[in-house]
Amino acid sequence: MRVEIVAVGTELLLGQIADTNSAWLGEHLAEWGIDSHFHQAVGDNHERIVLAFRTALARSDAVIVCGGLGPTQDDITRAAIAEVMNVGLVRDPAIERKIEEMFGSRGRPMSENNRLQADVPVGASIIEQTRGTAPGLICPVGQKVIYAVPGVPYEMSEMFERGILPDLLARIGETSVIRSRVLRTWGSSESGLAEAVNERFLHHEANNTGVTVAFLASGIEGIKVRLTAKAASEAEAEALLAEEAVEVVAAITTAYGDIIFSDHDQNMEETIAELLLQKGLTLGLAESLTGGLIASRLVDVPGASQWFRGGIVSYASEVKFDLLAVPEGPVVSPEAAEAMARGAKRTLKSDIGLAITGVAGPDPQEGHAPGTVFVGLAMPDGSVRSAELHLPGDRPRVRQYSAISALDLVRRALNDG
Amino acid sequence: MRVEIVAVGTELLLGQIADTNSAWLGEHLAEWGIDSHFHQAVGDNHERIVLAFRTALARSDAVIVCGGLGPTQDDITRAAIAEVMNVGLVRDPAIERKIEEMFGSRGRPMSENNRLQADVPVGASIIEQTRGTAPGLICPVGQKVIYAVPGVPYEMSEMFERGILPDLLARIGETSVIRSRVLRTWGSSESGLAEAVNERFLHHEANNTGVTVAFLASGIEGIKVRLTAKAASEAEAEALLAEEAVEVVAAITTAYGDIIFSDHDQNMEETIAELLLQKGLTLGLAESLTGGLIASRLVDVPGASQWFRGGIVSYASEVKFDLLAVPEGPVVSPEAAEAMARGAKRTLKSDIGLAITGVAGPDPQEGHAPGTVFVGLAMPDGSVRSAELHLPGDRPRVRQYSAISALDLVRRALNDG
Repeated sequence: MRVEIVAVGTELLLGQIADTNSAWLGEHLAEWGIDSHFHQAVGDNHERIVLAFRTALARSDAVIVCGGLGPTQDDITRAAIAEVMNVGLVRDPAIERKIEEMFGSRGRPMSENNRLQADVPVGASIIEQTRGTAPGLICPVGQKVIYAVPGVPYEMSEMFERGILPDLLARIGETSVIRSRVLRTWGSSESGLAEAVNERFLHHEANNTGVTVAFLASGIEGIKVRLTAKAASEAEAEALLAEEAVEVVAAITTAYGDIIFSDHDQNMEETIAELLLQKGLTLGLAESLTGGLIASRLVDVPGASQWFRGGIVSYASEVKFDLLAVPEGPVVSPEAAEAMARGAKRTLKSDIGLAITGVAGPDPQEGHAPGTVFVGLAMPDGSVRSAELHLPGDRPRVRQYSAISALDLVRRALNDG
Repeated sequence: MRVEIVAVGTELLLGQIADTNSAWLGEHLAEWGIDSHFHQAVGDNHERIVLAFRTALARSDAVIVCGGLGPTQDDITRAAIAEVMNVGLVRDPAIERKIEEMFGSRGRPMSENNRLQADVPVGASIIEQTRGTAPGLICPVGQKVIYAVPGVPYEMSEMFERGILPDLLARIGETSVIRSRVLRTWGSSESGLAEAVNERFLHHEANNTGVTVAFLASGIEGIKVRLTAKAASEAEAEALLAEEAVEVVAAITTAYGDIIFSDHDQNMEETIAELLLQKGLTLGLAESLTGGLIASRLVDVPGASQWFRGGIVSYASEVKFDLLAVPEGPVVSPEAAEAMARGAKRTLKSDIGLAITGVAGPDPQEGHAPGTVFVGLAMPDGSVRSAELHLPGDRPRVRQYSAISALDLVRRALNDG
């Protein structure tokens, strides 16, 4: 079973929104061992949507269409599917009533356009809505099928799990199982990692093992090492993965030391959270060039209130002097970073203080080139240390690399202590 | 000239990374009036990459391929293009030497794999690298062309502007001009907006004006209203757009009041920045449920240091009591929000204090349902106000809507004052 994903919307082609639905669907299909060999995006144009659907049906067994089911005049997915099915559209009175009720219960006036969302290609069945107004559709085309869901991620994901996945699995019967595991690293490059595990590549190629190893530089998420195994059963795939993980971890650690911060695709924040919880410690932040980025990543971790006290975004130098008791003078220096870390720890009453100051660019500051960053770390025993980083890239990249580098310093300190 | 974008990488299909390159390319092609009707993504598999290229060449005039030019074993774009061109690959000694020099100058050891990046399909020409190691390729296929660039956004964008765009424009000769303009709104729904401008839709449909109006809900970016005009000249397209903007702004303002925060696709932060600069005022933040999100958005605005003092991420309640002088007691309340705003203004020595506290979910807090949010605003004249919001969606959505809603309160206060 090969499933192709088609994202509909001129806003995708014009780059006014990034297509995150296709990535989400691809990930969730893979979890179930369902191949997705192609994704397409197409604009709000009837003929081209029809062509995209026909292209997808020619090279895949099923198509998941996201978007174009909304209540506005440029939502034309329903009509395009009807053409590919060679049938008409009929208005479904039960859906129409449900949409009316939903608007009624929210006390919102209903647009006449919303009734269009009750149109259904003849022969299609419905995936009921639980979060919005447009229902999803299951549309048979010969032995193949087109599934249509709204482009709103929140509605799409729920409908996929409730309506599409069970239908797909029923169609598949038996299939080979694909499992993957992701190691996360911080401290080497993609090509450096590839070199370190080269022996594994050669082994898999020579022996047709069903295992692959791939690398992916992911900004603030670190560099990912993805191990994938395809086998007849889940147990077999998991066994292949477990064996491969041991080999790859050993190869990377031998080459570069303690650079693997997770062996199960956990991000740096979650890794830090586990370590802090384990040791019963709390963290406080002082952020300058990252401007709240580290704090906002930390509060995304469920249960962050157990170990995260808060942060001070000391963007103006005076805030560093007043609130964090940084001595007046240069603010891009190891001394300033250490003073900020002590200040964060004291002001926020945390066990650990982490601070970051530096030059995001594009212009130099205090004679330092963009990418020059100082991280300060105040530990529970009163010791304070700092690290100097020279990071590549533009302003957003410098911020991202700064954030993960600063947290990695905490990780290494907690692992050592 | 229709250009199709093909993103190469199994990590895209597996959802381990979102494809932001295609969106970026689509946007920049549109700026030059170049149509892009389809995007595809395909995995690191030779046959399927070849099929994707052939599909793209059949329905478009040019193809831009992103990714698969790296130094690892799963980078096979070069070989797939050679197959579609029906030629072999040769190693280019000049590129090989350049890669060697680049590694030498950075004092990094060169992987043997990096030499693969010097392989070029016979008949292709080169787009030299300035930021990484893999050069881009311009590969003629009959009257059509495949451009290949690395998947690293930073390298891709620079190569597009220097190498691809001039070649495309040279091929095009004359073309119709597409121009678009985006209004941004906060305070109505997509279907509400569609209803408000329905008369415009009917007008364009009836008169074949070359103008389209579309809507796009974009989370923290607000709901966008995109006006697009296609005409023979830039002047004509701009005139159509200007005329349309007047009509659409009038229709929306009549229906919903002051909900358009930008008429030129400026985000809420930039809008606030302009207003603060105009009035010579500074802003300080106290963030609870948004955890630094607002601060990190504000510092993304160039020159933020002129009007942004900093923020306090008061995640733990004690930080609210200690640092912001919030009276001990409930922290999800209008009183707490107002106290936080006063505290931020005083502690950070800013002219305006903006504070946000509430329940991101999934669990209720202090008896309030998820999505209950209080925004506090302390103005330069000493007045303090608050607003109560009830926002839909999961945790990240509540945070995003909170952030834009809080900033919109500042915008309206500055516009009134």
